[in-house]
Amino acid sequence: MNFLIINGPNLNLLGKREPEIYGNTSFDDFFAALQAQYPQHTFRHIQSNHEGILIDTLHEYGFSAAGIVLNAGAYTHTSIAIADAIRSITSPVIEVHISNVFGREAFRHHSMLSEACKGVIAGLGFDSYRLAIEALIEMNTNR
Amino acid sequence: MNFLIINGPNLNLLGKREPEIYGNTSFDDFFAALQAQYPQHTFRHIQSNHEGILIDTLHEYGFSAAGIVLNAGAYTHTSIAIADAIRSITSPVIEVHISNVFGREAFRHHSMLSEACKGVIAGLGFDSYRLAIEALIEMNTNR
Amino acid sequence: MNFLIINGPNLNLLGKREPEIYGNTSFDDFFAALQAQYPQHTFRHIQSNHEGILIDTLHEYGFSAAGIVLNAGAYTHTSIAIADAIRSITSPVIEVHISNVFGREAFRHHSMLSEACKGVIAGLGFDSYRLAIEALIEMNTNR
Amino acid sequence: MNFLIINGPNLNLLGKREPEIYGNTSFDDFFAALQAQYPQHTFRHIQSNHEGILIDTLHEYGFSAAGIVLNAGAYTHTSIAIADAIRSITSPVIEVHISNVFGREAFRHHSMLSEACKGVIAGLGFDSYRLAIEALIEMNTNR
Amino acid sequence: MNFLIINGPNLNLLGKREPEIYGNTSFDDFFAALQAQYPQHTFRHIQSNHEGILIDTLHEYGFSAAGIVLNAGAYTHTSIAIADAIRSITSPVIEVHISNVFGREAFRHHSMLSEACKGVIAGLGFDSYRLAIEALIEMNTNR
Amino acid sequence: MNFLIINGPNLNLLGKREPEIYGNTSFDDFFAALQAQYPQHTFRHIQSNHEGILIDTLHEYGFSAAGIVLNAGAYTHTSIAIADAIRSITSPVIEVHISNVFGREAFRHHSMLSEACKGVIAGLGFDSYRLAIEALIEMNTNR
Amino acid sequence: MNFLIINGPNLNLLGKREPEIYGNTSFDDFFAALQAQYPQHTFRHIQSNHEGILIDTLHEYGFSAAGIVLNAGAYTHTSIAIADAIRSITSPVIEVHISNVFGREAFRHHSMLSEACKGVIAGLGFDSYRLAIEALIEMNTNR
Amino acid sequence: MNFLIINGPNLNLLGKREPEIYGNTSFDDFFAALQAQYPQHTFRHIQSNHEGILIDTLHEYGFSAAGIVLNAGAYTHTSIAIADAIRSITSPVIEVHISNVFGREAFRHHSMLSEACKGVIAGLGFDSYRLAIEALIEMNTNR
Amino acid sequence: MNFLIINGPNLNLLGKREPEIYGNTSFDDFFAALQAQYPQHTFRHIQSNHEGILIDTLHEYGFSAAGIVLNAGAYTHTSIAIADAIRSITSPVIEVHISNVFGREAFRHHSMLSEACKGVIAGLGFDSYRLAIEALIEMNTNR
Amino acid sequence: MNFLIINGPNLNLLGKREPEIYGNTSFDDFFAALQAQYPQHTFRHIQSNHEGILIDTLHEYGFSAAGIVLNAGAYTHTSIAIADAIRSITSPVIEVHISNVFGREAFRHHSMLSEACKGVIAGLGFDSYRLAIEALIEMNTNR
Amino acid sequence: MNFLIINGPNLNLLGKREPEIYGNTSFDDFFAALQAQYPQHTFRHIQSNHEGILIDTLHEYGFSAAGIVLNAGAYTHTSIAIADAIRSITSPVIEVHISNVFGREAFRHHSMLSEACKGVIAGLGFDSYRLAIEALIEMNTNR
Amino acid sequence: MNFLIINGPNLNLLGKREPEIYGNTSFDDFFAALQAQYPQHTFRHIQSNHEGILIDTLHEYGFSAAGIVLNAGAYTHTSIAIADAIRSITSPVIEVHISNVFGREAFRHHSMLSEACKGVIAGLGFDSYRLAIEALIEMNTNR
Repeated sequence: MNFLIINGPNLNLLGKREPEIYGNTSFDDFFAALQAQYPQHTFRHIQSNHEGILIDTLHEYGFSAAGIVLNAGAYTHTSIAIADAIRSITSPVIEVHISNVFGREAFRHHSMLSEACKGVIAGLGFDSYRLAIEALIEMNTNR
Repeated sequence: MNFLIINGPNLNLLGKREPEIYGNTSFDDFFAALQAQYPQHTFRHIQSNHEGILIDTLHEYGFSAAGIVLNAGAYTHTSIAIADAIRSITSPVIEVHISNVFGREAFRHHSMLSEACKGVIAGLGFDSYRLAIEALIEMNTNR
Repeated sequence: MNFLIINGPNLNLLGKREPEIYGNTSFDDFFAALQAQYPQHTFRHIQSNHEGILIDTLHEYGFSAAGIVLNAGAYTHTSIAIADAIRSITSPVIEVHISNVFGREAFRHHSMLSEACKGVIAGLGFDSYRLAIEALIEMNTNR
Repeated sequence: MNFLIINGPNLNLLGKREPEIYGNTSFDDFFAALQAQYPQHTFRHIQSNHEGILIDTLHEYGFSAAGIVLNAGAYTHTSIAIADAIRSITSPVIEVHISNVFGREAFRHHSMLSEACKGVIAGLGFDSYRLAIEALIEMNTNR
Repeated sequence: MNFLIINGPNLNLLGKREPEIYGNTSFDDFFAALQAQYPQHTFRHIQSNHEGILIDTLHEYGFSAAGIVLNAGAYTHTSIAIADAIRSITSPVIEVHISNVFGREAFRHHSMLSEACKGVIAGLGFDSYRLAIEALIEMNTNR
Repeated sequence: MNFLIINGPNLNLLGKREPEIYGNTSFDDFFAALQAQYPQHTFRHIQSNHEGILIDTLHEYGFSAAGIVLNAGAYTHTSIAIADAIRSITSPVIEVHISNVFGREAFRHHSMLSEACKGVIAGLGFDSYRLAIEALIEMNTNR
Repeated sequence: MNFLIINGPNLNLLGKREPEIYGNTSFDDFFAALQAQYPQHTFRHIQSNHEGILIDTLHEYGFSAAGIVLNAGAYTHTSIAIADAIRSITSPVIEVHISNVFGREAFRHHSMLSEACKGVIAGLGFDSYRLAIEALIEMNTNR
Repeated sequence: MNFLIINGPNLNLLGKREPEIYGNTSFDDFFAALQAQYPQHTFRHIQSNHEGILIDTLHEYGFSAAGIVLNAGAYTHTSIAIADAIRSITSPVIEVHISNVFGREAFRHHSMLSEACKGVIAGLGFDSYRLAIEALIEMNTNR
Repeated sequence: MNFLIINGPNLNLLGKREPEIYGNTSFDDFFAALQAQYPQHTFRHIQSNHEGILIDTLHEYGFSAAGIVLNAGAYTHTSIAIADAIRSITSPVIEVHISNVFGREAFRHHSMLSEACKGVIAGLGFDSYRLAIEALIEMNTNR
Repeated sequence: MNFLIINGPNLNLLGKREPEIYGNTSFDDFFAALQAQYPQHTFRHIQSNHEGILIDTLHEYGFSAAGIVLNAGAYTHTSIAIADAIRSITSPVIEVHISNVFGREAFRHHSMLSEACKGVIAGLGFDSYRLAIEALIEMNTNR
Repeated sequence: MNFLIINGPNLNLLGKREPEIYGNTSFDDFFAALQAQYPQHTFRHIQSNHEGILIDTLHEYGFSAAGIVLNAGAYTHTSIAIADAIRSITSPVIEVHISNVFGREAFRHHSMLSEACKGVIAGLGFDSYRLAIEALIEMNTNR
Repeated sequence: MNFLIINGPNLNLLGKREPEIYGNTSFDDFFAALQAQYPQHTFRHIQSNHEGILIDTLHEYGFSAAGIVLNAGAYTHTSIAIADAIRSITSPVIEVHISNVFGREAFRHHSMLSEACKGVIAGLGFDSYRLAIEALIEMNTNR
């Protein structure tokens, strides 16, 4: 199966940005380990700070990917446009967050995207991404 | 007269996306018919999923077009920046929506843009665009 | 086709009331011009300051008119009863406003009626009524 | 490792209650499969409709379990007392939901518990529980 | 037909508690009179101050009773868990209140349960219970 | 005893309007049956779409009727004037609703009238009216 | 000078309705005394429970009266339509209340009309009307 | 009778401050005219920008004055302490405003004081003070 | 005199739970010292994590105890049912909190119980309980 | 130890003001009794209706007093400036109220000061002050 | 040019109060340095904890100073009276804050004064005052 | 020192757009003057209407610039993503606004960015930028 991982704004700085919240591993290191763990599947990773590119990417892969793992960063809390993109495509999308957004500032407690996604996984570090892949494999296998 | 039609995020999927809400004609088919109906006028159509490009486009054409028809999609509900762009230019702008946004989710009931536009037309399918053109012709003719 | 235009409270003073907002043409002059422009259709115009009469009127014509254009004036923002009347009848209703209500006082930004109507046209002066008629003709023709 | 799964009010009716939301497998069937999948670990399952018993249970196992998976059902949205119990114990707790609570009624969008938990997994059916176990194993292994 | 009457917190003190609001007859006296008035039907009465027991009771009788009359007392205003229990069972439930809750403190004006019940009867003293029984008989007879 | 039933806006369309919510019996059929069921009492029925007429009617009969059953339709949610009329008269008034208003749109959840009425009965179809009559008979008999 | 006093809903019951709030003199007695006190001026008094008639009356006299004293009763708090009527006419309007509305229920604290009136006088019993006449005489004399 | 007029913050600048709102007569000129108009009564005028002095003044005169006219300026909208002072004394207090506060910024629409006063007079320029004196004379005469 | 101290959810963990907020003495140690300090009075202490048991306990002792000291823990902020129990009994109840709840999370700032209690003592550690006993002794002595 | 008691606005009228709420003993009588009860300690009492003087007083004594008992009256609910003064000094401050502010008007339910104080004691009459002194003695003794 | 710096409540404690927020230099030291840096201008500094004195001061200097730098401390967030004083005078006023008020407690995020001032400078320590002086010099020079 | 000035959406139209708010000098003219005034420092200016480019730019320069002056235009009020970018970098950022945003429409009163910035300067025209540079020089010099 082919999976897409989309990371939104400021996630290019992972490992470098606010390490007390986000840890100090870069996403690339984690991504390599993930690919190694699931050799039978294909993974693609796209990061952008542009809301428009996140939407373009959802459109481009959203009718063919077996599943999409989306960490939309701060756009999670403000973007109806990304939520509409998720509603417009056919691939299942799982929303993930590295930190426990519900325990941080009030403006991070509400997601515009969750309603449009299949599910939400938050607070489990990089492992949130792996669990989302697990869930997508399960969805593709058993449905 | 030269008119500009601007379509915002996810409207490139018209005809393909949630057809029970948006119908299953593509915008291109409608646009061709519109041009045919008003042969004495010039029409341009620009679609983008990028808020920044919508603003750039308003700036580029907003001092010369006889009128602009704007369906900003989901940015309608969140973008003060687009509203400011409309306030900054001189061409009249009419906000349109294909679906009746007032009868959908609560977050679609409020538009950040309406105050800055000349008028609003919503809920009449693709015909919303034609009526906006009609209104702009009337405005240019009688004022 | 037979169309009904319903005007609500204070719209009997059009041309006389707050001309900087509503212009200084009377509705009767506009109505005569409208009839002249669409000689193949029948128009009726009813104005009342009474919420109850607006409801009675919707009931009376709402099962036979080809379409209804409704400017409910200030009742737009407060009347669930008129909204229920619209839901109870079968003729399509389009909500219109002469001024851009979204750019005026906050209590004029929300309409109780929009959800129950087919569509909304606001801010285009008397032309809002003509465009609503256009939309109703289109609806009756192509559906 | 020993894990505890706590299910709150009405979850005893799983398989029987609102199957269009919760599916029609009973929790016992799922639980047996889960145990089979992770033979090297010990699992305990406690269900109660009593908020007080959920708290008593968190106190009883919360200083010795390797991890706790908590689906507090409707108490998720109202119980500060359970959240305080989670804050009072030392075992890591992950909040799970079978359905995508963020896409249901507004009163299910906010959780009193999330802030006190390590993480949240929602919307993935019974698989939400398995993924929580996966996360707890990872936490115990790598920290 | 067999009917169940469930009374929630503090209703065991009826006749003794705040008599200016709740009157000074005990529920037992009323219950005996009710049974006498409908000798052809079977009545059961359960009172508890425990939210969990109210849920357990709804589960136990909610698939076999001809109807349930529920006065959940103060839990009416706070318990999503009881509302979910009502949604989970098949017997029709009618919500009743002795006092006119809408004329008391603001926190008593909203019920979490009403949406899940068939109907609501409030403010008519103990007669609220009798009318609920009447309604349930009617429902069982005519549907 | 003489009872008055007052029906508010759009209830003249009962049996014809949104039958999936209100059923398809007309109120006249129900009213005839009600009179037949209680031959010892006198009933009057007045329906109006005019808030002012509802108030006039409450004033006219409100000092002599043994009781009034009021379904104020949509005015339930907006009319302080009707609530004041109820407070001004001496006959007991019971508020009724055919549908379960608490399970419909949010703007139907709050009643301006309930505080001024003796009680509220909602969600039980036409039977709501009969139960209100029962309650008024009980009130007149036992107080 | 000719003055108009308009009384809104339920004010026909003055002297009879809730005397602990409104006193037990009828408005007619007060009105006769007022006329006697100002023999050089002409007074007219109109009362209606119909919002539409209040608007019709404002339109009818609002371009010729030296001043209008308006006690719109409960419509004070809900009617944008009456406020718009006041804005549409040229005679100065003063809003009056017999009781101190600011010391009663919260829903009586806000007036939709005050912004459109010249001034507001509240809480001084029938004397509120006399003071409003005094103010209108002053306005007509000194401006 | 002896009356006290209390003016709050910034009212010392009357005639000089924002004349388009407050006119350009000073309060002293008005006060002299008022005394001349009611030679049979005694008037005292105290102005302060200090909330504490306004309270001290209410305490000092509030058990002996025949009435107090209070324009608390901006403290009207924020001072519970002044409202409590009014509640603590026995002289009747009438709240006045020169401008129509209800037609200005939103933070001027609510008064903390009105509930504690006998009545409110607003929007009638300096005449608001005279009318308050009239009302206090009436109160002292007829009660 | 006989006094009852009721501790609600999670207070069984005192001395063990979040010591930076609640200190590290257990309640039993404090309770022994309290009994020693007031040998002339009888004390009983009941702790439960069950809302229903707290209510049962209030009912059982609330008609005979000289006073009740209630720390309802997190139920303080959510339980109308406990507040109703306090209203239903005759013994005076004082609400206490060990920590200064007003300086913690926003959801701890509001108490559902305070209105029903005689008084509130918060933020003074275990000493809050002793002071409440002092107050109850004073109440029983001087009233 | 030297203690300071600060009383805010309107508390100079204790014994005279609204006795049904505040009793009819003057504060001076209570203060003399308090001094007599604790002869080993020094007490000072300052009352002012001026917010500024309350702040000045906190600054003057707040670095040397063993403790401060503060009843800020109505400023409790509005003064961030007093709260900041409490945060700026080193003496412990306990907030007290004679009446149960939580059972009175809604605007008395929230205190701006509580967060900055060590603790809060409310509703116990003048005894609230004595208990605060007790708590301050305990604090000075045991810490 | 002559400039006035006004400091509000608790700012007399600068250097002593909460040094982690406000630093540990006193304002006098900073003020001397400021005067030294701009020898060609005259500076006056007034500090008060009394809202009334802040208003008196604005009135006294507000028609002659070349500019006023105002740090109203906590009154920033609550005082409409000071905002009105600023609106009443002719000297330009700039609002300053030492700390970044937008990053502190929520009640410090909104200023009642900003709208009435020319500009706002916050978060830059004592340098905020110097920059305000710079801005006032620029205003006086170039306008 | 090297400084970066970032201008957000619509600020490319300065001098051309709404001159009554923003003046009619272009930013380029101001920027040239600024460079001339501080010849010892290096300045770079980047303007974009794209939120994503603003973030990219903050990332690119935010680890090396001596300071960043950010006028994010309308994104100020909506972009958590830009705020997160500011939090992620190490260069100090000062938020500036040309107009006094606090005196304009309500949606411009709140900034999502202020909390993440060192300070805020608003309302002082182009001089806001110069003062921010002054503050950044001071910060780099004295810390």
